[in-house]
Amino acid sequence: MTDRRSFLKFGAGAAAAGALFPISSQASNGDTKWDQEYDIIIVGSGFAGLAAAVEAKRLNAKSVVVFEKMGVYGGNSTLNAGQSCFAGTELQTKLGITDSAELMVKDQLKAGRGIASESLLRHSAELGPYVYQMTQDCGVKYRDHIITTGGTSATRSHQTIERSGAGFIQPMLKTARELGVETHNRHKFEHLIRNDNGDVLGVQIRRGYHFGHEDSGELINVRCNKGVLIATGGFGFNVNFRMAQDPTLTAEVGCTNAKGATGDGLIEMLAAGATPVHLAHIQSGPWASPDEGGFGYGAGFSLYNFPHSIAIDRNTGQRFMNEIADRKTRADLELQRRDKDGNPQPALLIAPKAEAQKDPSMKKVLKYNVAWEFDSVEAIAAHFKVPLKPLQQQIKDWNGYVANGTDPQFGKRMDAGRGIKLTAPFIVQRLWPKVHYCQGGIQINTKAEVMAAKTGVPIKGLYAAGEVTGGIHGVSRLGGCSTPECLAFGITAARSMMEA
Amino acid sequence: MTDRRSFLKFGAGAAAAGALFPISSQASNGDTKWDQEYDIIIVGSGFAGLAAAVEAKRLNAKSVVVFEKMGVYGGNSTLNAGQSCFAGTELQTKLGITDSAELMVKDQLKAGRGIASESLLRHSAELGPYVYQMTQDCGVKYRDHIITTGGTSATRSHQTIERSGAGFIQPMLKTARELGVETHNRHKFEHLIRNDNGDVLGVQIRRGYHFGHEDSGELINVRCNKGVLIATGGFGFNVNFRMAQDPTLTAEVGCTNAKGATGDGLIEMLAAGATPVHLAHIQSGPWASPDEGGFGYGAGFSLYNFPHSIAIDRNTGQRFMNEIADRKTRADLELQRRDKDGNPQPALLIAPKAEAQKDPSMKKVLKYNVAWEFDSVEAIAAHFKVPLKPLQQQIKDWNGYVANGTDPQFGKRMDAGRGIKLTAPFIVQRLWPKVHYCQGGIQINTKAEVMAAKTGVPIKGLYAAGEVTGGIHGVSRLGGCSTPECLAFGITAARSMMEA
Repeated sequence: MTDRRSFLKFGAGAAAAGALFPISSQASNGDTKWDQEYDIIIVGSGFAGLAAAVEAKRLNAKSVVVFEKMGVYGGNSTLNAGQSCFAGTELQTKLGITDSAELMVKDQLKAGRGIASESLLRHSAELGPYVYQMTQDCGVKYRDHIITTGGTSATRSHQTIERSGAGFIQPMLKTARELGVETHNRHKFEHLIRNDNGDVLGVQIRRGYHFGHEDSGELINVRCNKGVLIATGGFGFNVNFRMAQDPTLTAEVGCTNAKGATGDGLIEMLAAGATPVHLAHIQSGPWASPDEGGFGYGAGFSLYNFPHSIAIDRNTGQRFMNEIADRKTRADLELQRRDKDGNPQPALLIAPKAEAQKDPSMKKVLKYNVAWEFDSVEAIAAHFKVPLKPLQQQIKDWNGYVANGTDPQFGKRMDAGRGIKLTAPFIVQRLWPKVHYCQGGIQINTKAEVMAAKTGVPIKGLYAAGEVTGGIHGVSRLGGCSTPECLAFGITAARSMMEA
Repeated sequence: MTDRRSFLKFGAGAAAAGALFPISSQASNGDTKWDQEYDIIIVGSGFAGLAAAVEAKRLNAKSVVVFEKMGVYGGNSTLNAGQSCFAGTELQTKLGITDSAELMVKDQLKAGRGIASESLLRHSAELGPYVYQMTQDCGVKYRDHIITTGGTSATRSHQTIERSGAGFIQPMLKTARELGVETHNRHKFEHLIRNDNGDVLGVQIRRGYHFGHEDSGELINVRCNKGVLIATGGFGFNVNFRMAQDPTLTAEVGCTNAKGATGDGLIEMLAAGATPVHLAHIQSGPWASPDEGGFGYGAGFSLYNFPHSIAIDRNTGQRFMNEIADRKTRADLELQRRDKDGNPQPALLIAPKAEAQKDPSMKKVLKYNVAWEFDSVEAIAAHFKVPLKPLQQQIKDWNGYVANGTDPQFGKRMDAGRGIKLTAPFIVQRLWPKVHYCQGGIQINTKAEVMAAKTGVPIKGLYAAGEVTGGIHGVSRLGGCSTPECLAFGITAARSMMEA
């Protein structure tokens, strides 16, 4: 993202300013000139940052500031389907769904493949009902329909009526401001400012920053009384850094993230001695379409339709996966769909229009050529050059599974499809994973304190929450489980800072 | 390893010294008081450090120093079976083995499961013949017998006559000293010393350090003219840090490493802005015995015998893996052997004494109660409570595979067993993995330069080699493939520093 030139330039600039250490976080000394001061400094205005801001004010913090480097607030959090898994809500009860924090933790531990953090998962899941209520207090509106996401043993993904993360961000931003939180966009976090013991005293901010112009704006030093929360998100768009972890994730590989997801905050905390965790576990979204850029409309369509639809390999005309398995399982299997020369041959998600049309996502994918309507199996086979007879047989078999309530092919949880059969006309979307989420980041404890690599104890004054942290999800994160974690640990960080 | 108390103590101590930045690497300014100066500073005296020292002197470096924090030289490198994979040696040709660097890279890429670095692997493999010759020039003696390690498609693991890494370390240390390299034990690397641009100028060393006493000795500043090589090894013995990556690797889990493998050098480089890579990929050795501490004697025994022996699940009396599959495959499968309560039930490696006795490892394991001799299948079954009939059938089946040259159960490469049948008397060792190797570390390029996380370009003056680096092996490292990599990148670092 930054090149050597701008790196050196900044080095020179800071040296000229004379106030601070140019390379990294280890500004020290008692003679830092402070430009501003707040009780609580929050870097990043996504789910974690805004939840922390609201909670800090609820706990009567005197002064709270949120710095956002981009022109618009919300970061990557605005760009998802607005889903959040909560276990044990009134809405679940109303819909006859039995669930618990314990079950949610169990599902996530399984997806984490042995290296997820049980204590962090439990902390987040148990805070779920509070988060659900608090977001509603902020004005977040949830749909009456709860969604089944892959790898879960209970239907628990609550969704905003906007079907978008903006449905959280906008009311929470409004609430934070009403409570007196200062918010500043185009303010980029550059460095932590620390004393000789390594305690965090504040941050260096580039005020008036314009994304992509690393030396734009001016540097100011901002002091905190209680703590600094880094909630800057993942590094999905930092091609250098993600390729260091996985050389196959070249610039050619799509990414669903907002452009600002460059990992600056993560990298700065590493230089301050934070512990890196699970950076190599980068999740690709199995619901993405290769026929549009970014997160796109296809994700909403496929997420709605996976339970009652089938995914087909074009070479065989057969299913190749449980369409609601966890993300890693599906993404890995989707990436194996290849033509005889080894080139990508995206699988086909075939959905029944009768059901698909009940969700607004269908109109979007048809309008933007991310999915297409077909009147018959023959038409699908002819268009995508899929062997017809195996495909016909597969659809016949599938409808038998729907009738019997069991999937002998891949063990799909058939209750999620609510008995909906796959009949013409069909809507077909292509599936190819995109980089979506960084499970890895810096290590925190259940107080959202950042753990030092050298000592294994928290770095005083430094907190982190959301995708910039790592370890909670392990190898694979389940769908709808980032939002509740971001919100829960943002809230937790605010509580910890107010107790500090 | 270090606790908060000692951390703070050091902070205070350094502040009192007044010369340097206490917390991390970012000492800068032009007023550092230098106590010593060398062309090349090498931290760590294992394979990578000593290979660099010898190569630097071969290239006429004026002054080269090796700092070792422990009382004895060689670190973790002394503690293995003395194996090193080279492709295309005269010894292979003499033994009729067809092999190539390309084939070695291909094997390693497969084990790396998609995220290994092809460029680093190729660089290392292609340097193999030079490394093989250079080590012999130093006085390293190789056996005439080359070993088949798991996951390889050609027999290429060359072994020192001592069957130990000390067989490399001792002659290389002697050669380095003869060439004029200064070596200092009980000198612990504390910090990098850098200028305002982040370039590495030298190191802070704790002279007179005694392991476990973090404030022992005194701090000195050592300047380099050409560069600093960090070759400090892995973090297998740093329980905090490894648990951050994998919460199951508690203090209860055994570790084959030398006690000094605490990751200090890695953590210091991270604080200097190096890029962390693959830290979560920690390898457990599938050849370890639960009946002894550390690396032990069992590894040598099982490594010799895996090709012509079988590993048995005690519950079933059946094989459960390809005994020469790659390490991760085997370790994962071994860890799944459990009794009905879920407690570990180590598998049994059953070897034919007629062959086992040809290797000196047999005497050791019998002497130290790491393996036991049995006259019959019945005796094994009775002693370990294995169902007799399935075990008898399995051994009969196995000997059929030996005769036919194919393994229909697990696809083991049967030529590795050279037609040796499994007949009484038997030697039986128990198998349970131990933490052995950290695939992860900091990122380097093919010049052994350390890559900065923030900029994606090398940190000037800083080089790394060996287990402290990450990314080369990906998810799983093949047996016998650490030593050649350590040696090759140590040599490479020396060449780069001499060109710098």
